[in-house]
Amino acid sequence: MSDGPRSGAERRRDTEHRLAGDVDLWVATASADGVPYLVPLSFDWDGEALLLATPTDSPTGRNLASGRTVRLGLGLTRDVTLIDGEVEIIEMDALRAEPGDRFAARTGFDPRALTTPYRWFRVTPQRIQAWREADELSGRELMRDGRWST
Amino acid sequence: MSDGPRSGAERRRDTEHRLAGDVDLWVATASADGVPYLVPLSFDWDGEALLLATPTDSPTGRNLASGRTVRLGLGLTRDVTLIDGEVEIIEMDALRAEPGDRFAARTGFDPRALTTPYRWFRVTPQRIQAWREADELSGRELMRDGRWST
Repeated sequence: MSDGPRSGAERRRDTEHRLAGDVDLWVATASADGVPYLVPLSFDWDGEALLLATPTDSPTGRNLASGRTVRLGLGLTRDVTLIDGEVEIIEMDALRAEPGDRFAARTGFDPRALTTPYRWFRVTPQRIQAWREADELSGRELMRDGRWST
Repeated sequence: MSDGPRSGAERRRDTEHRLAGDVDLWVATASADGVPYLVPLSFDWDGEALLLATPTDSPTGRNLASGRTVRLGLGLTRDVTLIDGEVEIIEMDALRAEPGDRFAARTGFDPRALTTPYRWFRVTPQRIQAWREADELSGRELMRDGRWST
């Protein structure tokens, strides 16, 4: 897969490509007393933040609401982007129609249409890392404190 | 991908196939105060437990040592196996040669050869879930309290 390590600019381009086009990612959360949870979810990306939706009363929904911090994995285990983000809770009926429609069109899943109580969670990346193989571990940090470094 | 939902027996077979043959998985851990962490790691499987290795002083190494609980994701976001496991810490030189050799052969990575301090972490599954698409959410639990239910 590798022709030598990618530059920071290449990794940012590949990461933004995934954010713009992938449908699913891995969502790692934790309870207040330190029990980890992990589940795949669909997402949308508006250029600044990711939009997730999950049942209010699921482990992920409860952890996101209490901890307000999340770590997301995009891509494959040997072509990974990892995002540490801050979480904003948005009640289902409080989101404008347009981002909700975008989410439903991209993911094929409209949480506004369900009887199970769902919430939106808007995740703003604070730190982003991306690497493929061991030769890319150096230079893997692409964003720090919410700012792209490349 | 789907010809209707798989049976429990099919999901167990597919899960054991992944455990026996895959090289990498997603490792979700949490700090004692509830900060989630996620990273891809290589693993081996001896039929009863997974063997991982990571630096003692990495976030994952610290979280595994303090929390003794982990949630692992194998496969793809739409063909997933999730494992909640209990963690046993094994110091590098305390593991017998044979499982260490197996790990190195399978993963192409021998943590015994490094100067950075690493530890082994043996993860015994307590709960296993597997599903592909929404039609497989029912019946996704394959193991509970450490026992296969199928």
